Parts: sequence; C-alpha cells; structure tokens
Amino acid sequence: MSERQFHLNAFLMGVGHHEAAWRHPNTDAANLLDVKHFQNLGRIAERGKLDSVFFADGLAVGPRVKHNTQAIFEPVTLLSAIAAATDKVGLIATASTSYGDPYTLARKFASLDHISGGRGGWNIVTSAGADEAANFGLGAVPAHSDRYERAEEFVDVTLDLWDSWEEGAILLDEETGVFADPDRVHRIDHDGPRFSVAGPLNSPRSPQGRPLLVQAGSSESGKDFAARYAEAVFTAQRTLEQGQDFYSDLKSRLIRYGRNPDDLKVLPGIVPFIADTEDEAKALEQSFTDLISPEYSLRQLSNMVGVDLTEHSLDAPLPPLPDLDHIQGNKSRYQLVKDLAETEKLTVRELIGKLGGGRGHRTFAGTAEQVADELTEWFDKGAADGFNIMPPYLPGGLEIFVDRVVPILQSRGLFRTEYTESTLRGHYGLAESVGKRSRATVAVEVSA
Amino acid sequence: MSERQFHLNAFLMGVGHHEAAWRHPNTDAANLLDVKHFQNLGRIAERGKLDSVFFADGLAVGPRVKHNTQAIFEPVTLLSAIAAATDKVGLIATASTSYGDPYTLARKFASLDHISGGRGGWNIVTSAGADEAANFGLGAVPAHSDRYERAEEFVDVTLDLWDSWEEGAILLDEETGVFADPDRVHRIDHDGPRFSVAGPLNSPRSPQGRPLLVQAGSSESGKDFAARYAEAVFTAQRTLEQGQDFYSDLKSRLIRYGRNPDDLKVLPGIVPFIADTEDEAKALEQSFTDLISPEYSLRQLSNMVGVDLTEHSLDAPLPPLPDLDHIQGNKSRYQLVKDLAETEKLTVRELIGKLGGGRGHRTFAGTAEQVADELTEWFDKGAADGFNIMPPYLPGGLEIFVDRVVPILQSRGLFRTEYTESTLRGHYGLAESVGKRSRATVAVEVSA
Repeated sequence: MSERQFHLNAFLMGVGHHEAAWRHPNTDAANLLDVKHFQNLGRIAERGKLDSVFFADGLAVGPRVKHNTQAIFEPVTLLSAIAAATDKVGLIATASTSYGDPYTLARKFASLDHISGGRGGWNIVTSAGADEAANFGLGAVPAHSDRYERAEEFVDVTLDLWDSWEEGAILLDEETGVFADPDRVHRIDHDGPRFSVAGPLNSPRSPQGRPLLVQAGSSESGKDFAARYAEAVFTAQRTLEQGQDFYSDLKSRLIRYGRNPDDLKVLPGIVPFIADTEDEAKALEQSFTDLISPEYSLRQLSNMVGVDLTEHSLDAPLPPLPDLDHIQGNKSRYQLVKDLAETEKLTVRELIGKLGGGRGHRTFAGTAEQVADELTEWFDKGAADGFNIMPPYLPGGLEIFVDRVVPILQSRGLFRTEYTESTLRGHYGLAESVGKRSRATVAVEVSA
Repeated sequence: MSERQFHLNAFLMGVGHHEAAWRHPNTDAANLLDVKHFQNLGRIAERGKLDSVFFADGLAVGPRVKHNTQAIFEPVTLLSAIAAATDKVGLIATASTSYGDPYTLARKFASLDHISGGRGGWNIVTSAGADEAANFGLGAVPAHSDRYERAEEFVDVTLDLWDSWEEGAILLDEETGVFADPDRVHRIDHDGPRFSVAGPLNSPRSPQGRPLLVQAGSSESGKDFAARYAEAVFTAQRTLEQGQDFYSDLKSRLIRYGRNPDDLKVLPGIVPFIADTEDEAKALEQSFTDLISPEYSLRQLSNMVGVDLTEHSLDAPLPPLPDLDHIQGNKSRYQLVKDLAETEKLTVRELIGKLGGGRGHRTFAGTAEQVADELTEWFDKGAADGFNIMPPYLPGGLEIFVDRVVPILQSRGLFRTEYTESTLRGHYGLAESVGKRSRATVAVEVSA
C-alpha cells in the first residue's frame, strides 16, 4: 500500500445531486422525506470505508420552491439519526457563522461528536443569500468582507469553547462525589467586536476534542480563511490545471499561517455517472439532462450570476455579466460559471445542461475504471488529496461508486480496505486535537 | 376502560434525578457519557407505552461543575438519536426563547418531528440564569417580565413559521417537475419589537404540523403563558391541595384565552422510590439521601433562594429570605422551597434531604400499589391529567415504574395497554394540528 492515501467524502443531497434526479426512474422521490433513506446512505458509505458523509445547508427556502426539492431535515439532527445507524463513517454538517451564536453552535457540534463517538465535523459557511438575511432580522446581506470577519471571530470563540474543558476534566469519582475537576474547566471571557461569551461550554470535551473543521469557500477571502482554520476543503474545479492551481495556492497559504500542508486535505467535487461502458455512462448522463426543467434552471443560473435570465432565450449565449467585484455572494462559483460559458462559447441551454449535474462541480461519465483513472490522475498530479463524491442519483449512484470504483482504488493501494481509526480526524489522518496551545502559536506567527 | 386516561411522561436526567444518583450502587456513572444508555431509556419508556420522554436543558455550566453531573448531550440531537432507536414514544426537548432565533429553533424542532415521524415536542423555557446571559453577550439576566414578552413573540413567530407550509404543499409531481405548490408556501413577514422574520421556513410542514408545546413555568406570568400556548405543563406540586389549586387555576385561565380545558394536560412531577414493601422503599430513599454532598447541595439551595448559604450551619433553620418580588429567576420554585422550610420548620440539612430527590418536586416512597394509589388519587381528585415521572435512578427507577406501576394503572383501565396513535399529539389526545386559522381566532378573543 502506498504511503499517501485517498480521502473520500460522500456529499449527500436528497435523492441525488442532479437537479432532475428526483424525476428520474433511477430514484424514488418519496425517499426525500424518509430518514431511513439517509440512514441507508450512511451505511452504504460505511460499507465503502469512506472517510465521511456530508450535508450542505441553507437558511431560506429561496424563490425556487416550485421546482427545487427542499431539504426536509436539518443536517445536525439528521446526522444524529445517521450516527445511530452507523459506527465508523464521519458525519459532517454545514452551519453558518453569519447568524446565531457561537455558544449554541459549539454545543450542537460537541453533542454530535459525543453522540457519534468522535465522528462530527463542521462545514463552515458564511451565508450569502438575501433571503437568508431576511429570516434573521437583516434587511440586506452583510458584505463579503463583513461576513468573513464575523466568521473569524465566530470560529475563534467556538474553538475556545471546545477547549474550555480540558482532556481528563471529568473525574466521575463516586467515592468523593467529585464529578469534574474545576481547575480543568475554564471560562473563556471572550469580549470581541461581535461576541461576548463567558464560557465554559455546557458540554464536557467531546471525543475528538474539536470536531473537524471543513470549508468550501474558494474566493480570496475564502482561501485565506481555509488556510487559517480548515482541515478539509470542498472545492469545485473543472479541469486538472485549475485543480492544480487551486491546490498549490491553498497549500502555500497554509505555510503562511504556520501550518503544515498536510494539515488540510483538498477535496475537489466530482459528479460521476458510472456504467459498464463509456457509451452507456454518457447515455445515463443524457437521460438526466433530458429531464431538466428550463424554468427552474434559468432561475438557478440567474441566482448564480446575479442577472435575471428568466426571459432570456435558451439558444443564445449569456448576456454580458457584471464584474466580479460587484458580486457579494459566491464569488468563486460566479467566476467558474462565467469562465465556462465564455471559454466553451455555450448557449444558455448548453450551459444549463453542463451545470445540472452538480451546480458547477465537474461531472464525469465513464466506466468505473475510467473514473478511478481520472481520480488517480488528479491525486497523483497535485490537484487533490481525495474527492468530494457527489452522486448524481441516490442511493444507486453512491452504491455503484462504493461497489465498483472503491475496490479499484483499494487494489491500487490508494484507499483503506478497513477502517483503522475510530474518529473522523483519525480517518483524515489528523491529530486527535490541536489543543489550545498550538492554536495560540499559530496566532502569534500570523501577527509576526 | 374508563374514558379519561392517564398521560405519562418520563423526565430523564443523566443516571437519575436524585442528585447523588451517580454515586449510588444502583447506577453506573459511566452511563452519563453513553448515548446507548439514553436510547435504552427511550425503549424502556416505549415498553411501558408512556406518552413521551423529556430532557431539561440549561445554557451554562454554572458554578457547580465540581459536584454536579453535567449533561453531555444537547436535547434535540440526543432525541434524534433516540428517535432512531424507538418507534412510538414522544420526544420532548427543552429550548430557550431568551437567546437565539425563532427561525433556527423552528427548523430544529421541525427536523426532529420529521426524523421521528411526528413525535417531537418543545418545552419552552425563558432562561433565568446570569451565567446563561453571560454566554450570549448580555451583562445581566433580562427581567422576568421582559423574558416572557420575548417568549411570546418568539413563540408567535415559531408557530407562524411552522404554518408557513400548508398541509399538502408538497406535490412531488415527477411528470411535470413540480416539487411544491408555491401557492401553499407562504412568507410570514413578521416585523415585531424583537424579531423581523420573512419566512417561509426552510422545512416543509412536519408530520404533526406543529410539534407539541410544553411549558413548566408556574409563576403568574408562567401560568398565563401556559394558558395561552401550552398543550402540556410540567409542574412541581408537593401536596394534593396545592396540586388541586394549581390545576383549577390553570384550567380556568385557559378558558379566558378561548381554549378548552382539555387542550392542556397538567402533569405534576413525582420522584418515586419503589420497592416490595414500604419500609424497603423508605430505606432505598434513605440510601440515596445518605450520599448527598452538603457542599454541593448548599450551592444548589443558595441558587434556588437567591441567598448565599454556603457558610450557613447545616443544623440551623434557613435565614430570612427576600420577598418574592425581588426574585427574577424561578419564582414558583423559590416560593415552594420557602413554604416547605417554613411550614415544616426544617433545618437546612433536613431541607437539603427533602430537595435532593427532585429539586423541589414531590418524592414518594412506597410499593408499586401505593404509588399507583397516590397517582390515581391526584388524577381522580382534580390535581392532575397524568404525571411527569422523575425516576430517582436510571435505568432501574424507570424500569420498576414501567414494569410494576404501569400494569396496575392498566388493570384499572386508566392507561393504554397499546399505543393507538403514532404521533405525540395523538398520545396526548390533542388534534393533529391547530392550524393557522384557529390560532388567529384565539388572538382575536384575547384582545376583545
């Protein structure tokens, strides 16, 4: 077995990432409403020895309720139910730093980590939607830079809260009646521009000490944030070259924050259509594309590029788009869509087809061997430490990946054949906990 | 079987309600840290056909970390894991209206309701602790009346959010690609003194429409709040007469809010020590009292009465206590402790012993038959619609209640022998959902 190993996350969304998945005969739309479907997905991922499963999240319905299948479950409560049905696989939930309190969030993820025996992870997002802001008393979305400033303070407080109970603070001494050593439970007394939090957290230290920190922003601020805090990054990269650029950029930023490049795993997304032959795989993808509803997709695309395209002709190219500087939402996804439309000279209809599988993430149609080759090439050529697998339909698209692609990676010595660790940090080859002292050192180096 | 039936909730706390439970040979202290212990408790409650299980919660560690076993798990995430291990029993979690956002809370409980197939309930509290305020950016606890004003607006918004998706809004029409009928998904556009929330909720209507609303405040504001919103009330009443007074007071308030007295179930707490003979039951209780740590209990009592008693002699009576008007915390519990100490002329040591079982809730030691008789008397004489069972030790104290007391109640035709409903509202004999219109009617009657 080679020394460097793949890390694989299953990004789970309803009955599949393809926007028309729920209408396709390969899925059962009723599964959208059924927690047992999601528990089953957790078990399939565990059968494949995957590092983790992951759920995205948003804090508004958005204007697309007619055609967009809504998430039924909140990610952390859903992952608690999946924890009860699995033993090993990591459990990563999205939660926003733009609304709510660090105390509540720290407690929620500590609880998930306790419930799962050390398998919890937090995908940190800074909600960019105006519809989200309006659900939390704000008339407009905070500016991109404000969101990241708040995110930094939010994460700092959360880390301090997770560290407020030292390892070994619980004594459970039945003889003397001492539950915890008060000298190993600390106030944090944070008093910053946005948050004032006394602590300690109302949860003893969780099995991992700190749930794994994941991030997916790929803007300049996003990459700096990831380099400072994240331990895994989900990213959308469409070509090997773009993937290599992103990978080396992010790893070099890590060094500036006094971290080791191995302390963060880069996991590009891929939407794999897998079949016995390449032709069958392409036909499978086409059968999904054929079900795309243009009305829905035009709204989705309008949202991505910040221009109303709902009356735009499907067979014309995109109209001129605003400068990146004017985008306050997901800057990196905007850039990706703009580049894709311009370099490939696509009509709106063609663009919609390309985006339908994974909202900008790379789609790939081929045999299991071809998928494994593609992944291995990215892994070998410095574009990835592993992948964020985004099955276009569920559960089938996850099953075929686990049952056909994973064994190829295992036979090449690139992926575990059994779990060797019991925590999410363990699966990703990261220390059990970075602890208070090492983070303080980082802060000093940053300010130097 | 008689028409009027008992409703029974199991109030679960660590390895038991008695403050020394974790040190007693009847428990295994390691269970405090083990989610499987709590899943097992859910299954025991379900074996007994109980209506629900319930977890309290607080938003700070408090000053008693040395002796006070801390909750390891956050209630809603814990109940999601228990939902995965049970099929029928209701799942009630405490959450505060004093901190956080209605949008987040509405979503979390909707998710629990989806995950459990309609078994979710919310015990509404208005956190009274200064240590809690300091974890959410406040220098002091909001005044009692402010907390209740905020609670009312918080609950109003939450109910509107739960109603923002009408029954039947999800169409899942694979042919036309229509997920939901946008005409049945509504903005709420709430703009009040404390919250501004656009809606709709990012969760389709949950199986119960609205999770069950539970409340436990017994002050004047608390009783009015309960009469307006609650569907079940947990209360601490030490004597039949006090129980009758509380019961008739609360039911009469319901009528003022245009509600039917049956729309709210009154469930006094009881901490039952059960054994084959009365003497054995009393000896069992004494074996717990003997393990009480005075250092811990004096802090606990100081907290309840708002006077530092940690240097006070254990064998003297309580010092003079402040007037009720000066208490900003749990007013009804303060009054109960003061009355108990004064009417029974107790020393501090005796008072601590009386409070050790259930922090002011009634303890009762006897045979299963005696417990059943006591409960039946309260039920028959207008003091209770059922009970909040607070086992002094777990799991044993719940098992003996389920295996010995429940069959007696069943043989008397006072309690179900099988679940006849699948939702928590169903177990409590309440309508599936009150719906938007009926609540608007209530509001009109209130202002008339």
